Amino acid sequence: MARTDHPVTSVATTTAPIHFEVDDTPNMAGTRARSGRLQTGHGPVETPIFMPVGTNATVKALDPEDLEAVGAQIILANTYHLSVRPGHRRIETLGGLHSFMAWDHPILTDSGGFQVVSLADSRKITEDGVTFRSHLDGSLLDFTPEYAIEVQEALGPDIAVCLDQPVPPHASSREDVAGATARTHRWAERCLEAHTRPDQALFGIIQGGLEADLRADSTQAIASLPFDGLCIGGLAGDESPAQRRAALDVVIALLEDDPRPRYLMGLGSPLDLLDAVDAGVDMFDSVLPARVARNGTLWTPEGRLNLRNARFLDDPRPVQEGCRCLLCRTFSRAYLAHLVRADELLAFRLATCHNLTFILDFMTTIRSSIGAGSFPELKQELRARQGGTDGADSDSEGRAKSQ
Amino acid sequence: MARTDHPVTSVATTTAPIHFEVDDTPNMAGTRARSGRLQTGHGPVETPIFMPVGTNATVKALDPEDLEAVGAQIILANTYHLSVRPGHRRIETLGGLHSFMAWDHPILTDSGGFQVVSLADSRKITEDGVTFRSHLDGSLLDFTPEYAIEVQEALGPDIAVCLDQPVPPHASSREDVAGATARTHRWAERCLEAHTRPDQALFGIIQGGLEADLRADSTQAIASLPFDGLCIGGLAGDESPAQRRAALDVVIALLEDDPRPRYLMGLGSPLDLLDAVDAGVDMFDSVLPARVARNGTLWTPEGRLNLRNARFLDDPRPVQEGCRCLLCRTFSRAYLAHLVRADELLAFRLATCHNLTFILDFMTTIRSSIGAGSFPELKQELRARQGGTDGADSDSEGRAKSQ
Repeated sequence: MARTDHPVTSVATTTAPIHFEVDDTPNMAGTRARSGRLQTGHGPVETPIFMPVGTNATVKALDPEDLEAVGAQIILANTYHLSVRPGHRRIETLGGLHSFMAWDHPILTDSGGFQVVSLADSRKITEDGVTFRSHLDGSLLDFTPEYAIEVQEALGPDIAVCLDQPVPPHASSREDVAGATARTHRWAERCLEAHTRPDQALFGIIQGGLEADLRADSTQAIASLPFDGLCIGGLAGDESPAQRRAALDVVIALLEDDPRPRYLMGLGSPLDLLDAVDAGVDMFDSVLPARVARNGTLWTPEGRLNLRNARFLDDPRPVQEGCRCLLCRTFSRAYLAHLVRADELLAFRLATCHNLTFILDFMTTIRSSIGAGSFPELKQELRARQGGTDGADSDSEGRAKSQ
Repeated sequence: MARTDHPVTSVATTTAPIHFEVDDTPNMAGTRARSGRLQTGHGPVETPIFMPVGTNATVKALDPEDLEAVGAQIILANTYHLSVRPGHRRIETLGGLHSFMAWDHPILTDSGGFQVVSLADSRKITEDGVTFRSHLDGSLLDFTPEYAIEVQEALGPDIAVCLDQPVPPHASSREDVAGATARTHRWAERCLEAHTRPDQALFGIIQGGLEADLRADSTQAIASLPFDGLCIGGLAGDESPAQRRAALDVVIALLEDDPRPRYLMGLGSPLDLLDAVDAGVDMFDSVLPARVARNGTLWTPEGRLNLRNARFLDDPRPVQEGCRCLLCRTFSRAYLAHLVRADELLAFRLATCHNLTFILDFMTTIRSSIGAGSFPELKQELRARQGGTDGADSDSEGRAKSQ
């Protein structure tokens, strides 16, 4: 892929690996929310969309039919983890990631940049790249921008992502943010140089922490490169919702006329997603809904249910009345509470099916309201109703320990 | 249920909770194998049958649709475990075990007798019953024959089982076997006295260890009582296959004209089932196929595959060519081997689906051959082919640590 000094979007070319169209929707005051459709070689994705996370080429406890049933349109897998185990060359030989995990729908791979934060104790960063000490056997692994692309070209997701250097947004000094952001830009150019696979989209990552000027510089730097989509990184960390929103507003204002999809990395709680859609974001991922499910926390329109609470042991109602998921169609709160207490494997699958169904239906509701021009009203209503769902399982927890 | 001194089978009465019919099949020399059909209030069971074990009201890692897909016709749940957690009165209030676990097919509950062996370090036996120290919180629980019936009437399985006192067959002295067997007979009468639920069958348990005369006495004692079916207990333990077969031959010879179903408790490996069907047994249960699956051992017609072996990481073939299970229809050995190494939850479900499908299809093949009069030939063929499937995961392991 050739470099250029000006924004060039691949959507204009016929050989583009993906195609993104923003819907023509009623004007709505006071929001940048938008809906659209991302066409990939493995089918369409309707945005705004939440992507369940399958770090190890499996969304924990679910099979592909479960994923279709919960309404997943695209999932995320992890470049770093899969390169270490089972190995990207092995997956390539077996026919690529889609075939390997029997998922015939779109896949995006996270580049390994997030592991720069999540595995902070076992990595060293230089201009060349990141050296990880393997989380499995302690061996050293040089993760350069070029290597991140090589791995992703072997894995074969529909969308690859550049290697970046995120930093904790709130805890980092301006100097650290500036250094990491500048390096992320240099790595972005190296990733573009290295990327050769014409059937695979490549997204760049905007950094800049919580510093408005650094965010703006990074947005312009990354948007000027011919990426197929733009990730907003270095958020969904230790920042407050207000800090995150301020950073998003800086980014999105500069991308107003940019036709490419905008993907905020690592965000997963309902109210956080609502706010980011409001800010103009199209794509999201997080382990949060699935991880809290495995801990026995179920999301409903009325708030969170902690199934470890003894009162649920006698509750014959479904977790959520009218919910279409495997859990709610089949079992009572009492049964799930029993499974959770008995550490039964089925609990993980049922709870995960529910929370992913919940968050994907939540996104569908948002998408419909954008089409109907009623998103601002929906936002008020959901904020009022969803208060109880957020809180203890906030996104910072969701992202910080995710992978 | 009234006591009588002579064998009375409930199958002759119109109010019987179950009805068992042995098929009229071609005469086959040198085998007592038979096929039949057990009618219950939750549908029919074609015998010989293997019952997957759902100790805690869940067959580990599977949901009811998975169970139907693997071909389960009847499952087993555990009286002791469910009485402790979540409590039988709770399950009764929630509508009974079928409703609780959303399994609208037959259920048999194991009485708690097996825990006399499996929880040997935390129980005391008196003439009155067994006092367990709860495996959950250390509290004391008096499990009398009457209480075992009370629990099972509350749970509401189609088939309840008497409390018995099994002993390790090989390691026990004749004196110990004799004492436990006589007590089992006294407890059987107390269970019959206590049992009142007309829509629930009650099976008695034959003990007698490996002593031919004690086995024979126990067979006659239990068969003389008006049970709906006869369990053969105290086997599938530390005995050799030859010792087990000798004990079975004593039992079945005495039951030749008894129309009731015969259930050998705790047996689960293919060759062991084959031999026991040959001896004339109709019903089986074991945690073995599911437990070895969770450890990464997959059964195939050609023998066992240990998916932890590195050679499977590059193997694009299904675990078993032509197998109808979720795993083999969807994924490669390479993918399962990856999931097993990554300790991914999906591995447990996929491997369990396969091994249960395998053992249930194995039983279907056996049943068909009985109908066709070709069981003796099948037996020779399966013994030759299945040699590799048995061995390390023998039934003694399967039963001894099962629950």
